[in-house]
Amino acid sequence: MLTFCEWVRRQTSGTGAALILTLGCVNTALAAATPDQTAAALAQSALTNSGALEILTSLTTEVGPRLAGTAAEQRAAAWARARFETAGFDKVWSEPFTLTNGWARGLEQASITSPSPQPLVVTALGGSVATPPPGLEAEVALFKTYAELLAMPTNSLTGKIVVVTQPMVRAQDGGGYGTLNAMRTAGPGEAARRGAAAYLLRSLGTDRHRVAHTGGTHYAPDAPRIPAAALSVPDAEQLERLVALGKPVRIRLLLTPRDLGPVTSQNVIAEIQGREHPEKIVLLGAHLDSWDLGTGAIDDGAGVAIVMAATKMIRALPAPPRCTIRVVLFGAEEPGVIGGNAYAAAHQAELSHYVIAAEPDFGQGPVYRFQTGVTNPEVPSLQRIRAVLAPLGVLPGDNASHGESDVGPLAKRQVPAVTLAMDGTDYFDLHHTADDTLDKVLPGRINQSTACYVAFTYLAAELGDDYRQPAAVPAR
Amino acid sequence: MLTFCEWVRRQTSGTGAALILTLGCVNTALAAATPDQTAAALAQSALTNSGALEILTSLTTEVGPRLAGTAAEQRAAAWARARFETAGFDKVWSEPFTLTNGWARGLEQASITSPSPQPLVVTALGGSVATPPPGLEAEVALFKTYAELLAMPTNSLTGKIVVVTQPMVRAQDGGGYGTLNAMRTAGPGEAARRGAAAYLLRSLGTDRHRVAHTGGTHYAPDAPRIPAAALSVPDAEQLERLVALGKPVRIRLLLTPRDLGPVTSQNVIAEIQGREHPEKIVLLGAHLDSWDLGTGAIDDGAGVAIVMAATKMIRALPAPPRCTIRVVLFGAEEPGVIGGNAYAAAHQAELSHYVIAAEPDFGQGPVYRFQTGVTNPEVPSLQRIRAVLAPLGVLPGDNASHGESDVGPLAKRQVPAVTLAMDGTDYFDLHHTADDTLDKVLPGRINQSTACYVAFTYLAAELGDDYRQPAAVPAR
Repeated sequence: MLTFCEWVRRQTSGTGAALILTLGCVNTALAAATPDQTAAALAQSALTNSGALEILTSLTTEVGPRLAGTAAEQRAAAWARARFETAGFDKVWSEPFTLTNGWARGLEQASITSPSPQPLVVTALGGSVATPPPGLEAEVALFKTYAELLAMPTNSLTGKIVVVTQPMVRAQDGGGYGTLNAMRTAGPGEAARRGAAAYLLRSLGTDRHRVAHTGGTHYAPDAPRIPAAALSVPDAEQLERLVALGKPVRIRLLLTPRDLGPVTSQNVIAEIQGREHPEKIVLLGAHLDSWDLGTGAIDDGAGVAIVMAATKMIRALPAPPRCTIRVVLFGAEEPGVIGGNAYAAAHQAELSHYVIAAEPDFGQGPVYRFQTGVTNPEVPSLQRIRAVLAPLGVLPGDNASHGESDVGPLAKRQVPAVTLAMDGTDYFDLHHTADDTLDKVLPGRINQSTACYVAFTYLAAELGDDYRQPAAVPAR
Repeated sequence: MLTFCEWVRRQTSGTGAALILTLGCVNTALAAATPDQTAAALAQSALTNSGALEILTSLTTEVGPRLAGTAAEQRAAAWARARFETAGFDKVWSEPFTLTNGWARGLEQASITSPSPQPLVVTALGGSVATPPPGLEAEVALFKTYAELLAMPTNSLTGKIVVVTQPMVRAQDGGGYGTLNAMRTAGPGEAARRGAAAYLLRSLGTDRHRVAHTGGTHYAPDAPRIPAAALSVPDAEQLERLVALGKPVRIRLLLTPRDLGPVTSQNVIAEIQGREHPEKIVLLGAHLDSWDLGTGAIDDGAGVAIVMAATKMIRALPAPPRCTIRVVLFGAEEPGVIGGNAYAAAHQAELSHYVIAAEPDFGQGPVYRFQTGVTNPEVPSLQRIRAVLAPLGVLPGDNASHGESDVGPLAKRQVPAVTLAMDGTDYFDLHHTADDTLDKVLPGRINQSTACYVAFTYLAAELGDDYRQPAAVPAR
């Protein structure tokens, strides 16, 4: 005898549209299906064609790069609202907020001037100040680890261009990024405190291409704000070799970014209202802004496409789940989770009604582990979610989820969160570079991620459990 | 009983230096060795450490990019002369020549201005003229194949920016490049003849990175000289998608390259004089100039390193081969084999004494096929060379070699030539891009190529056959 899942699989010939049609025609079967079976059927359909790649193609082509606080980010917001409305979401709205410092990239030129003149590939860090108008030229002080820079005394590097070349480690969970993050975010301040005229770091990236990885940086309040940029990996290695030859190495650097002052960004929000508990909310996030160098296909166009595709499939079911599903496409994540913090502050009063929150912001997937951040990770509803995710290739994970990116501020406010952890082995080959473009996204990978999200989201909203409940059994 | 080769292998513990020492200490054994055994022993030693990677590291780091006719190319020439002198070559000299049109790259900026503003990655083709000073903006006329452009009537594209997006095919023998070469070299003239304001092509490359592939172009004498640049592959695909949406697509393009007028380049030449027939010459070429975007590690730093390393090993033998080995490091290959033509013209009178010529100009290898361009490819001396190359992983090839790159003009003048054909499967991932840097070269690959070159060169110079002799047996 066929299981319900098997039956749906045979009927649907693999397309999301076909599944929806089929589900629409078989109310009897549906009524008889358990939520777990419906979640599994949605996932099976998504594996073949979730619609995510079509959404991502549209976003990255018709909008392109979407730097926070720009007209491009506003075009992305309009694009998202139109998409949600076409898909028949119950409510679609925007919540604008102010980004204190808009920022625009300018020229970025660097070269070795001696001993062997040659160009260097650099890109300004987000928020970097400009060099003086004609550029600056200075001798290099190179450190092979960030710790070596930190070990230098105050004012010991006066007038130097500090270069830090510590390589980033490739790791499935992205652990190499967290470890080195301060080298980018705090490095310019540390170098300035020691007297540096400018700061260059080896890109926080695992590729070997002449594309540099940008990313936000923060200046120290007690030190001058100096120009800061990332070198491509081959350029950082070239500098190491030249410095090792023993002659002084000099670099010329020209950066002309501009601080635009206060600009407007926005979160775009869409809802599928719950059929029994519209006040209880399962929140899915993703961020609509991207850096300006690529088209933000993996960061975080993929996340946007995954949550839009997953919720569009749920919207097309004959009946919505018991609880509300709210999708928030955050603005201005890259400059420092500005949209995520604005959302959490504005919605503080309702957060106690949130069932759970999740956000894909780690590329195209596949999802390989399900981490929770709840009071009791062993409750039956989470076991049921794990059971539906397991055949999609998802391991059970720990209970240390703090929510990805923009839902982090919700988790800090005690909203239960999960992380459908994506395989990040090659994520930092592309992250924050001009290479972050559509052609890097593979259907099989983004469909698997969407399958995991549609299954998780449907089940979480249908079961509507209270993940704040004290643990009935000892937590793992 | 040990063979001589086996004995040498056991003694040398794998380094070139150790081999040389060993060979120096065992004149009796050497005297007893056949040329084939010596060639095989040299190859075995090169497989482990040919010295090529050290040479390549020095060239790409201490000189860097080496655009034809620039001070950087002259620094490369001085570097090469010093290296040959240190290695004890019998004669080392330069032969300067004039490059009619020196060229310097300038700014290169492109962006889509509508319907969805976003930056494009482009790089000017070598020899391109500049755009007007503020840049130019025009509507795109996109052709998915070069043939579609050629099918357009004269003046049918007035004022348009012509974009041709035909993709290059990946092939081991580089066949995809030859087929599409006219799209870059003749495309600007064909577009201008049809009224275009500028010409953009999808890079002749097989990668998917936001680095564009430059390369020389030639203008048609009967059409205006219009600005010409290559798009990176993801940018070409983005334009295809946008054009397919049906709205007019407009591009803004700014290129500021400069024609420098006549400049000087040079061929650097070094010789190991033959012990019996110094007038008979085995010629090895490679080109010292590179494009300016990368450091020319694979094009043609690898070729330079392979021929320098191979001949340095032969120089260190107790006695030189019977015929002279001449290494020519050509200048100004990239703008159109200027150094190769200058050499052939200047040395016309002596060419009848040349035994054979070869040039590696297809990356780091490995060598996988031995092609000849001789009167009778079945002569015993070539069979002996094939027999020594076979265990290195080299197939026998056809007799259609016309000599690579700079030795092509010699082959046209009836100098016998061979091609030690390199595997080019990934060559066009890097060719003519900023990504052509040292980190892409693997010791095992460049050592195998050097092993093939040292074996071929030693045997060809020791055997000193006459490859112009009429065929005694029917040629294959």
